[in-house]
Amino acid sequence: MTHAVVLFGHGSRDPAWRQPMDAVARRIVARQPEVQVACAFLELQEPSLPAALDELVARGVRSVRVVPMFLGAGRHAREDLPVLLNQIRSRHPGLALEVTEAVGEQPEVLDLLAQLALRTLR
Amino acid sequence: MTHAVVLFGHGSRDPAWRQPMDAVARRIVARQPEVQVACAFLELQEPSLPAALDELVARGVRSVRVVPMFLGAGRHAREDLPVLLNQIRSRHPGLALEVTEAVGEQPEVLDLLAQLALRTLR
Repeated sequence: MTHAVVLFGHGSRDPAWRQPMDAVARRIVARQPEVQVACAFLELQEPSLPAALDELVARGVRSVRVVPMFLGAGRHAREDLPVLLNQIRSRHPGLALEVTEAVGEQPEVLDLLAQLALRTLR
Repeated sequence: MTHAVVLFGHGSRDPAWRQPMDAVARRIVARQPEVQVACAFLELQEPSLPAALDELVARGVRSVRVVPMFLGAGRHAREDLPVLLNQIRSRHPGLALEVTEAVGEQPEVLDLLAQLALRTLR
């Protein structure tokens, strides 16, 4: 089965905004080259999440993990994302679709941010 | 010298949005109880960054590290934040004010996000 990871972020009018997402995508490929990786955006940037999933399915992907790249626990991850996932599930009923917690809700991320905030504090 | 860490996030109309920032703040206090910690917001939530700094300085803080809690490398961290920092520096000329890279530009964060995105991928 061909797996993919999709990093799903808010999007911005600023083209530089996506650089950290691209940097995470490159690190995923470096760690596990057989996994396909794509970035997708809620608004202001392309592709949308459904468009990214269409593209992956067309390339033979049958299993996708979506990682919501949101630091805040807001409506985007809680309300907008489920609507998009329902669209995707009805378009690709055979697709194994998994969604992780938003990165801002993953305890390891919170721990690391606290640790880095204190790094070499004088 | 009394130190403080200020977690500076975008802000949202959704009150739940700040939960991950509060969770990081709690972890900082747990690790280093003598450090004061505050959250501040660019928009849509209070306090603003200058208001948070006024408050800390009034409480005797003389050294502040600001941590931009932005995952995207956008104009908020690059353009809006420096304007606020200039305001703060002119209001509190004796304050030692340090700003870290935005969390989305810290290599350890990018590494962890890549690692977590691949966790137990089937």
